[in-house]
Amino acid sequence: MAGNTFGQLFKLTSFGESHGKAIGGVIDGCPAGILLDLEKIQSELERRKPGQSKIVTQRKEPDVVEIYSGIFEGKTTGTPIGFAIYNTNQKSKDYSHIKDSYRPSHADYVYDKKYGFRDYRGGGRSSARETASRVVAGAIAKQFLKDVKINAFVSQVGKIKLEKNYTQLDFSNIESNAVRCPDIEMAGQMEDYIKSIKKEGDTVGGVITCVIQNVPIGLGEPVFDKLHAELGKAMLSINAVKGFEYGSGFEGVLMKGSAHNDQFNEDGTTKTNRSGGVQGGITNGMDIYFNVAFKPVATVLQSYETINKEGEKVTTQGKGRHDPCVVPRAVPIVEAMAAIVLADYMLLARSNKI
Amino acid sequence: MAGNTFGQLFKLTSFGESHGKAIGGVIDGCPAGILLDLEKIQSELERRKPGQSKIVTQRKEPDVVEIYSGIFEGKTTGTPIGFAIYNTNQKSKDYSHIKDSYRPSHADYVYDKKYGFRDYRGGGRSSARETASRVVAGAIAKQFLKDVKINAFVSQVGKIKLEKNYTQLDFSNIESNAVRCPDIEMAGQMEDYIKSIKKEGDTVGGVITCVIQNVPIGLGEPVFDKLHAELGKAMLSINAVKGFEYGSGFEGVLMKGSAHNDQFNEDGTTKTNRSGGVQGGITNGMDIYFNVAFKPVATVLQSYETINKEGEKVTTQGKGRHDPCVVPRAVPIVEAMAAIVLADYMLLARSNKI
Amino acid sequence: MAGNTFGQLFKLTSFGESHGKAIGGVIDGCPAGILLDLEKIQSELERRKPGQSKIVTQRKEPDVVEIYSGIFEGKTTGTPIGFAIYNTNQKSKDYSHIKDSYRPSHADYVYDKKYGFRDYRGGGRSSARETASRVVAGAIAKQFLKDVKINAFVSQVGKIKLEKNYTQLDFSNIESNAVRCPDIEMAGQMEDYIKSIKKEGDTVGGVITCVIQNVPIGLGEPVFDKLHAELGKAMLSINAVKGFEYGSGFEGVLMKGSAHNDQFNEDGTTKTNRSGGVQGGITNGMDIYFNVAFKPVATVLQSYETINKEGEKVTTQGKGRHDPCVVPRAVPIVEAMAAIVLADYMLLARSNKI
Amino acid sequence: MAGNTFGQLFKLTSFGESHGKAIGGVIDGCPAGILLDLEKIQSELERRKPGQSKIVTQRKEPDVVEIYSGIFEGKTTGTPIGFAIYNTNQKSKDYSHIKDSYRPSHADYVYDKKYGFRDYRGGGRSSARETASRVVAGAIAKQFLKDVKINAFVSQVGKIKLEKNYTQLDFSNIESNAVRCPDIEMAGQMEDYIKSIKKEGDTVGGVITCVIQNVPIGLGEPVFDKLHAELGKAMLSINAVKGFEYGSGFEGVLMKGSAHNDQFNEDGTTKTNRSGGVQGGITNGMDIYFNVAFKPVATVLQSYETINKEGEKVTTQGKGRHDPCVVPRAVPIVEAMAAIVLADYMLLARSNKI
Repeated sequence: MAGNTFGQLFKLTSFGESHGKAIGGVIDGCPAGILLDLEKIQSELERRKPGQSKIVTQRKEPDVVEIYSGIFEGKTTGTPIGFAIYNTNQKSKDYSHIKDSYRPSHADYVYDKKYGFRDYRGGGRSSARETASRVVAGAIAKQFLKDVKINAFVSQVGKIKLEKNYTQLDFSNIESNAVRCPDIEMAGQMEDYIKSIKKEGDTVGGVITCVIQNVPIGLGEPVFDKLHAELGKAMLSINAVKGFEYGSGFEGVLMKGSAHNDQFNEDGTTKTNRSGGVQGGITNGMDIYFNVAFKPVATVLQSYETINKEGEKVTTQGKGRHDPCVVPRAVPIVEAMAAIVLADYMLLARSNKI
Repeated sequence: MAGNTFGQLFKLTSFGESHGKAIGGVIDGCPAGILLDLEKIQSELERRKPGQSKIVTQRKEPDVVEIYSGIFEGKTTGTPIGFAIYNTNQKSKDYSHIKDSYRPSHADYVYDKKYGFRDYRGGGRSSARETASRVVAGAIAKQFLKDVKINAFVSQVGKIKLEKNYTQLDFSNIESNAVRCPDIEMAGQMEDYIKSIKKEGDTVGGVITCVIQNVPIGLGEPVFDKLHAELGKAMLSINAVKGFEYGSGFEGVLMKGSAHNDQFNEDGTTKTNRSGGVQGGITNGMDIYFNVAFKPVATVLQSYETINKEGEKVTTQGKGRHDPCVVPRAVPIVEAMAAIVLADYMLLARSNKI
Repeated sequence: MAGNTFGQLFKLTSFGESHGKAIGGVIDGCPAGILLDLEKIQSELERRKPGQSKIVTQRKEPDVVEIYSGIFEGKTTGTPIGFAIYNTNQKSKDYSHIKDSYRPSHADYVYDKKYGFRDYRGGGRSSARETASRVVAGAIAKQFLKDVKINAFVSQVGKIKLEKNYTQLDFSNIESNAVRCPDIEMAGQMEDYIKSIKKEGDTVGGVITCVIQNVPIGLGEPVFDKLHAELGKAMLSINAVKGFEYGSGFEGVLMKGSAHNDQFNEDGTTKTNRSGGVQGGITNGMDIYFNVAFKPVATVLQSYETINKEGEKVTTQGKGRHDPCVVPRAVPIVEAMAAIVLADYMLLARSNKI
Repeated sequence: MAGNTFGQLFKLTSFGESHGKAIGGVIDGCPAGILLDLEKIQSELERRKPGQSKIVTQRKEPDVVEIYSGIFEGKTTGTPIGFAIYNTNQKSKDYSHIKDSYRPSHADYVYDKKYGFRDYRGGGRSSARETASRVVAGAIAKQFLKDVKINAFVSQVGKIKLEKNYTQLDFSNIESNAVRCPDIEMAGQMEDYIKSIKKEGDTVGGVITCVIQNVPIGLGEPVFDKLHAELGKAMLSINAVKGFEYGSGFEGVLMKGSAHNDQFNEDGTTKTNRSGGVQGGITNGMDIYFNVAFKPVATVLQSYETINKEGEKVTTQGKGRHDPCVVPRAVPIVEAMAAIVLADYMLLARSNKI
């Protein structure tokens, strides 16, 4: 399979290149009877949209979703939801600097090798523009999930790292600043840092933390399809992601078992939550939380040496309007993929018992 | 789906509980014509087997694989390879301490909630014993992969961490010590530490690093099925895993794009390899490398408080023969899952072009 | 899964209701490098289109396909091909006669029961309009298949049945008449019969025969995914289909094995072809041929009694512009599904051997 | 995929060659909490077993199923059910007559072409012996389905055809005779005919009719995974099957729509049932019924000409103990596949609505 479908029962199939006519997708398996708030879908797209603040790319793309099917009299019908987002920014540009040469740490080289040629306009299919389709599907999944609350936020930009635990944070602050960090003071530092990086024509990486609350007990298919394994795959499939950890994560390695184990309360909740809400691949009702590491964006607005198709050295100048740091705009994408996984596993869990 | 199948074209379906009659599986999609060395399959199982050294569980399980189908005159036939490993250690034991109470940070509680009841004998399906089936499938995948070299090793135990880069290590040392760490000196320190932890009846976590070399260019299905996303899911599906990072991983977050980007040589290789051999989800021919974080084993041989089915507090004593640290025995499991993913994507890549 | 995806490696995901904004789909897994003739795609749609002759429905729908992605500089890129066909005939009509009552032998009743409510406008998702998406995917599959020739034709309408074997027919006659029957004389009889049925406001069933030539040897996955089993499913998934048989089919039941067996020629071809080009689920290089039975269209332009949502008897008058016989327009749909199956199994077969 | 898995949520993965060590499979996705009657599983295998009467093959195979996992304290646990049936009849035989030559209308030739070589012992993977694994899975599916009644029976052998509708038959007669035909008189005629065919060393085809009663409304995923399409694929995947029709089937072609339509009663049932219990791919609660056509067994105990691997003509003598007519033993296989499809769609239907 060419890998453009995600999910088993709640499924998103995505299509589209950054500079083709449109991107979009089909959401199949969404249960019937959900009263959909279409404005909420659009508002999630606004959170991902370029041009929303000074620390993100200044490209102008309206990103208006057009829904073709699957909804009738305001409610999902159980049939597939087809949708498209037109690429308005499609005008013929000068792509000569990327047409014949390979940008370092981009997918240009491997696409050419794998497929024999590539749509070189602005990254084509490998562009993060594809994630807009995920945000649409995630916004619908969220409405199906109803009481389950999914909050992602920026917890690190370069070396600037939020040391507070998520329980000490006020999620209502997330959207109050351009970075999407719930700690206002840290958000200010991060924003300043991103601005300084942008001035250099350079980029920087970051970490997004995601917290899922009010999760039903019993989601997750043990063995290969453990809930956290699917969440990990979902996150690692987002452009620029280099790492995923949940619960105690890489830090947990340092602990002894006697200290790491989550002791039970009498109601089945646990006193600590190093398990991150998942035990043996199945939710135990505690909060799910995980971190996602994003590398610095590969497109730097500097001059660099690279090779062309013929394997000759060429010097190129990075140009265009790019994000100096991807994490602020990636927050809604992380939430969307989390929502899709949760919706899918919610449906899968319906077949557990007689 | 109940999640006991992994892979799209090279597929493992696994079955079995730790104390049922047998565990085993079916490998479907293995190409025809591979001359199988059956001893190599068994020797991979020996690497995972309990009782192989003083720092692993002292249980005695011969773990002999019996192959039922799919091989004729020494070669794979293209038909499914069914196999079983009998559970010889199946004698009726005293399970009263886990039958009615829930071990902290195990899957006991969630299985009861999800399925209504559980096979409480030694962890049942949630036991890491299941991974023996993965090792069988991985050993066959390795023989299909031929020139691709997969080497995993222990790079961290608790706080003791290998600081050397994998290129500075001699992989031929991996099997020379009980820890499976290629740096002999560090291996000694790790072994001593595990022994001291064992004496306390406690456990500790660790990290396994895996390096894949001689990888063909062009493996990986962009978007949702990026190669590293599938590798991540494969690793996160292994018992006790809490995190996955590839290439520059979580460290990459700290770098600027201009420094992080891998510059090309004229032959298409790159001067650095922060991409970890994968760009845009597709292999570029450079080494793939990644880290997998394992939490400390939940079973500690100490007394602890927990709850029973009725939600009442009970005090229990951990007993049995358990691993004080899971990473030495998990090395062949990590390699096996890597091999399965690579074999699967090798077959998938055959449909790229006309 | 909600069942809107067909295929394993060459996959069509379809969306859309008959009276929503648009129908369409995503073709995933199409190999890169196919020089696509877009006019051929449109011309296949013309073959399926309403209003093309006097014996089909007189509705006017231009059925113009708009392709959003997956093609660059005239060639497939290996990325998903998203497309839509706008529903131009979407004006607000009077649906009162089907909104609250259930048309006999339609899907109205079961959709209401399954999903709680339904998009009652013109059949919604259960409308055969959905098959236009299949025709688009089939037209692309055909271009991938190149030398494989797929010819479907009408071989029976009501009692009027072509007794000639397909080898006695001239396929170039198929498109010469409105019925799509290669025997001109029989085509005339069938056309007259359909016209007389239409006058009565009634409908009639028919059979489509499909012949696939120049098939490579070795397509088909034995056991559950036998080639003819997948072809059967593909055909049975087309609206109004009630039966499928291949090779000797139901007639073969009457024969003795000694007479039914296909004896070999020295070059591996067979003297007879009762196997229909498939043995043990795998193609043997001989022609594949099969029959598909279509029931009479359920919508009759007569008055009939039925029930409403409340289970009360109501009398209704069938109206609108409907096909008196579905088979002439179903010919390209049968070909399309055959092409999709063949393309899919062509890709699957690439993983047979080392 | 190599096609050895059937089902989406209730899944059977099958393995094994006719003369390897064992055949068997893994049933994944069976809900937890089913109190399994293991004797019923074995008794279904007895119905399929060779040597049970004078009109079937006289081979002796005990066909005892050994279950390895997935059951605890008599109940399914929700984990995969692994099982094997040892091949006791495995002794080294003289296969020289099929090792180097290709039996007509068998899979020998295509396996060699597809995979490069084949396990030539008794048909290997292409042997109908594989269907024993399906019977095990079907027997478990039946116990999950509980109130749903599945009855298959022989309705035709060669030209001898049951003209009665299934509603006129007494299903309790099915197991009373060796043919498995509920009409005792017809059963006698069929039995005599099969005996006479056997004497000639020849074989004959037949039809099995299957009736499914007490089906819940709403099973079936519209569009590609219509219930009858999946049933069709399930049946066409059984060895020797050449055709499938449901409801009015090929006969329905002859009718006019006004006569073919099933008029509603006030309770939502229909006065007639030409739809065969399925409308638009979804069950409407009426009986499901369908016919499956089986060709005459290809192995005839006569002398015949064929070719060897080198493409040279050779004369061979059919030998061994083979079924003169496959339908009596195929009755439990048809029921098993129907049960697997129903169980699978029962689970899928759980995700229809919010």
